[in-house]
Amino acid sequence: MLQSKLISNTKKEWPNEATLKSHGLLIKGGYIKQMAAGIYTLMPLARKVTSKIENIIREEMNALGAQEVLMPVVATKKLWDMSGRYSAINGELLKFNDRTKAPMVLSMTHEEAVVFMAMTEANSYQKYPFSVYQIQTKFRDEARSRGGLIRVREFTMKDAYSFHTSSESLDKIYDEYYDAYNRIYKRVGIPEVIAVASDTGMMGGSGAHEYMLLCDAGEDKIVVCKECGYKANMEVAYTDDFEPFNKKEENLEKIHTPNTNTIDTLCEYINKPKEAMAKAVIYTRMDTKDPVVVFIRADKEVNETKLTNYIGCDITPRKEVEDDNITYGFVGPVNFKGKNASVIYDKSLQNEKSLISGANERDYHYTGINILRDVGEVEFIDVAKVTENDTCPICSKKALTISNGIEVGNIFKLGTKYTKSMGMTYLDENGKEQNPIMGCYGIGVGRLMASVLEARADKNATNWPASIAPFDIHILPIDYTKSDDIKNISDSLYEKLNDMGYDVLFDDRAKNPGVKFADSDLIGAPIKIIVSRRNIENNVFEIKVLGSDEPKLINIDEIYEYIKNIREELMK
Amino acid sequence: MLQSKLISNTKKEWPNEATLKSHGLLIKGGYIKQMAAGIYTLMPLARKVTSKIENIIREEMNALGAQEVLMPVVATKKLWDMSGRYSAINGELLKFNDRTKAPMVLSMTHEEAVVFMAMTEANSYQKYPFSVYQIQTKFRDEARSRGGLIRVREFTMKDAYSFHTSSESLDKIYDEYYDAYNRIYKRVGIPEVIAVASDTGMMGGSGAHEYMLLCDAGEDKIVVCKECGYKANMEVAYTDDFEPFNKKEENLEKIHTPNTNTIDTLCEYINKPKEAMAKAVIYTRMDTKDPVVVFIRADKEVNETKLTNYIGCDITPRKEVEDDNITYGFVGPVNFKGKNASVIYDKSLQNEKSLISGANERDYHYTGINILRDVGEVEFIDVAKVTENDTCPICSKKALTISNGIEVGNIFKLGTKYTKSMGMTYLDENGKEQNPIMGCYGIGVGRLMASVLEARADKNATNWPASIAPFDIHILPIDYTKSDDIKNISDSLYEKLNDMGYDVLFDDRAKNPGVKFADSDLIGAPIKIIVSRRNIENNVFEIKVLGSDEPKLINIDEIYEYIKNIREELMK
Repeated sequence: MLQSKLISNTKKEWPNEATLKSHGLLIKGGYIKQMAAGIYTLMPLARKVTSKIENIIREEMNALGAQEVLMPVVATKKLWDMSGRYSAINGELLKFNDRTKAPMVLSMTHEEAVVFMAMTEANSYQKYPFSVYQIQTKFRDEARSRGGLIRVREFTMKDAYSFHTSSESLDKIYDEYYDAYNRIYKRVGIPEVIAVASDTGMMGGSGAHEYMLLCDAGEDKIVVCKECGYKANMEVAYTDDFEPFNKKEENLEKIHTPNTNTIDTLCEYINKPKEAMAKAVIYTRMDTKDPVVVFIRADKEVNETKLTNYIGCDITPRKEVEDDNITYGFVGPVNFKGKNASVIYDKSLQNEKSLISGANERDYHYTGINILRDVGEVEFIDVAKVTENDTCPICSKKALTISNGIEVGNIFKLGTKYTKSMGMTYLDENGKEQNPIMGCYGIGVGRLMASVLEARADKNATNWPASIAPFDIHILPIDYTKSDDIKNISDSLYEKLNDMGYDVLFDDRAKNPGVKFADSDLIGAPIKIIVSRRNIENNVFEIKVLGSDEPKLINIDEIYEYIKNIREELMK
Repeated sequence: MLQSKLISNTKKEWPNEATLKSHGLLIKGGYIKQMAAGIYTLMPLARKVTSKIENIIREEMNALGAQEVLMPVVATKKLWDMSGRYSAINGELLKFNDRTKAPMVLSMTHEEAVVFMAMTEANSYQKYPFSVYQIQTKFRDEARSRGGLIRVREFTMKDAYSFHTSSESLDKIYDEYYDAYNRIYKRVGIPEVIAVASDTGMMGGSGAHEYMLLCDAGEDKIVVCKECGYKANMEVAYTDDFEPFNKKEENLEKIHTPNTNTIDTLCEYINKPKEAMAKAVIYTRMDTKDPVVVFIRADKEVNETKLTNYIGCDITPRKEVEDDNITYGFVGPVNFKGKNASVIYDKSLQNEKSLISGANERDYHYTGINILRDVGEVEFIDVAKVTENDTCPICSKKALTISNGIEVGNIFKLGTKYTKSMGMTYLDENGKEQNPIMGCYGIGVGRLMASVLEARADKNATNWPASIAPFDIHILPIDYTKSDDIKNISDSLYEKLNDMGYDVLFDDRAKNPGVKFADSDLIGAPIKIIVSRRNIENNVFEIKVLGSDEPKLINIDEIYEYIKNIREELMK
């Protein structure tokens, strides 16, 4: 197409609001325009990229035998009541009434809808296994949308769902999706994406992976073993080797520690490192409002996902509450008598012979605490966040690292959570009613596009891979509007490349070369052909190809053959 | 694909709820499943059809140079306030608050969004004209969704918008869309769709066409001249020849007409036809709540669209109101003294010399009314619905006919309604700020699919055209699970046709031929190959091709060449 006709403009300046590379580039390049918090219009360049991403995803889904469907965005409360999620999810699930006052939701995911669709269609074991998918609009009322398309409220998602009569069948298909996802990331230009074990969260189920692009812009924390490749989201990462810091048993002693109601003040006051201490982290159970006290070595942090999963109830950090018999700032395991409190001992404490911790009395701490001796036989539970250099649970080397990651996809073994709650059944080979087992598999299209930029772009250039670039070829004639020679030769180049079936952008604008080149870097076609007076005098075009720093001069007669070969190379 | 794997089942019975052919077939064939009133899931067969329709539309839009974008479903009240439509549209526009209590809408159309997007991108006349389009989800909170996909609440729509610096430019591009739409209907198999002049309704603007499929299932009334081809939606259709029924002037006379407060009772009481009378049709203006009284010949109906456009305000039929000085049931033009009433005389009365009408007094009518003589000089306005055999305003023959039609698309000349209200401007060649002129162009994808069925299907067979059929070829092996010969020969046929690039459905189910054929008619692949024992003994396949009643026996060796030719023929 003619660049003068492209409706979106590039912006001269980096947008003030953009801290992420992808956000800034998408705005500066005229790819997206914000309409409200977390709500964007995809302008033509972005729509071209997402169309190509969608087609790659569609091809991979079809290759798995998944059948494309289209479920509605708007669903009834009644449907979401069948799974119990209408009342379970607040805030993010947008709820409203239609004109008849019937309560509805904007779907953020489609487990209920897909079970509702499939429950009448798959009543015999012979139909199984099967998968359906859709590429469709979703709405999640994020409290803090951020980073352009990285975290939005309205988004296009590919969501797939598989149905099975055995967990072996689920495992098999799950593995096929696992591989298909890796192919998708490779095909859109980010083969470095890794699958990490993840929490199943509100989705329920028995196992899950998230696909992570490791990069500073990510808001997830990913644990990777640099020795063996063990990978997990921080939410579920663990170590199973708890080497004690305090190896020598000592006597229990109460000491006066005025004004030391934080770990830092205590460390300073008694001149000991955090590893010598057990701290208390206190939460409120959301169901009973009772306290949950976690004792954990003071250099560690509580992993709230693990804690939530362990106690089976949402939690929130506890503010000081009167009458709960807790001496905030001086809580410790010895003589702790918090009212209705659940007490959890993290595994970081299980081998420590001697610890310093609060004496449950203002301005006093105990030293020499030995939990088994001074508190009694307690169970130690893993509710800690892994830390850098912790021991890998797989290869047992002290090699765990922590990186930031963007979640670019996820796959879940859902089990029978939805089929059971919604009453979807089939007759097995013995004529017995069973609930199918499900898997679900999601990729956000817009976030994937933005993530490709986080991985590949620099601040001035998108560097799209050929597979998803908005255009295949960008022709940049210098002095196009001033020179008949340039005009004729570049017009015919444009026409011929169009005829060859390439999607060509042609910069017919009366702009200076600097502007043309800068815009061209933002648009990021993988092949750029510069037509200049000097070059055509020498009977050559200048070609810049994605991935090679140096432009090449190609004889005008050989250009089409050259482009054909380069293009094939780029699309491999 | 293997038919045993197709997740949706055909239904044995015609669905009770379906009165329309398309509705029944889409449910019986397992194409769609209802989730709530006017909210459907498209199952795999339907999604395959809509994907093909979307691609045809996309090709035609791209050929016009329209640029694909994707605007959000959710928009802010703020945006819709800019055009004034947030408060102007009630009921159908779904309004809700997000988690921050910010008022939002589910977009039913995207004029506001597209102006918001374009207003920063097209500040110079040089960018014009341009078009953008999207294929996207919309929600319209219809009070009475009906007929399966014919009138729904959530739907996928292609909506395009063009921007211009002159009405000549709009006219030119409008004509291009007009032609592209005709090509789309032709390509999806309903070339009989006609464009009719239509009302611009709540969209505003200076001209509009609706594309209508004439069929009994339609709820629009379309006026077509059977002589010259004049076509218009009933809402805007007109005649300009008002031949009088009552040609002889008579004296005004008041007569006693007890219990005749309807036209029918009056006709019977005085033994005259409706054409002899003027009736009063009474509305309430929605702004002032004052009455609007339309006098019209009693055999005619008021066209409420024309009336609304004339008075410039919404109206609703008036129920009897006290204190408005109207003698309901006996209203007539002579001595009418309704309080604050606007009085409108329809053109059907303008040539009548003598009329019977109410005397504005209970149980009395006047006969011999001559409006000009007895009421005075009044203006006659055309607010009547055209009736069968009215005179065509173009060719002046008494040849107007009225048909039902389904609206399968519409195009509007919007003018500056949105650009002006939202403050979108560009600098013209003289550096002067101007508001761009707009056009908009819509097609509902699901309704188009259903309309193809209304036009082409019979009660047992979808008869999809090859361009949008869910599968290209349907292989129906009889005794597939019982005969090795059948299995081998049909498996290899399936493989070869797949390799040739066709989308093939293969009926591998252990069903009897009757069931297979019935399902095959519902699925509607344009080429069906029946593999049976007798045929393969004779070294032939039986082929049924869309549009030919008689199956053909084709030699097994010639089948691929035959299919190739047939397919090319079907896709023409």
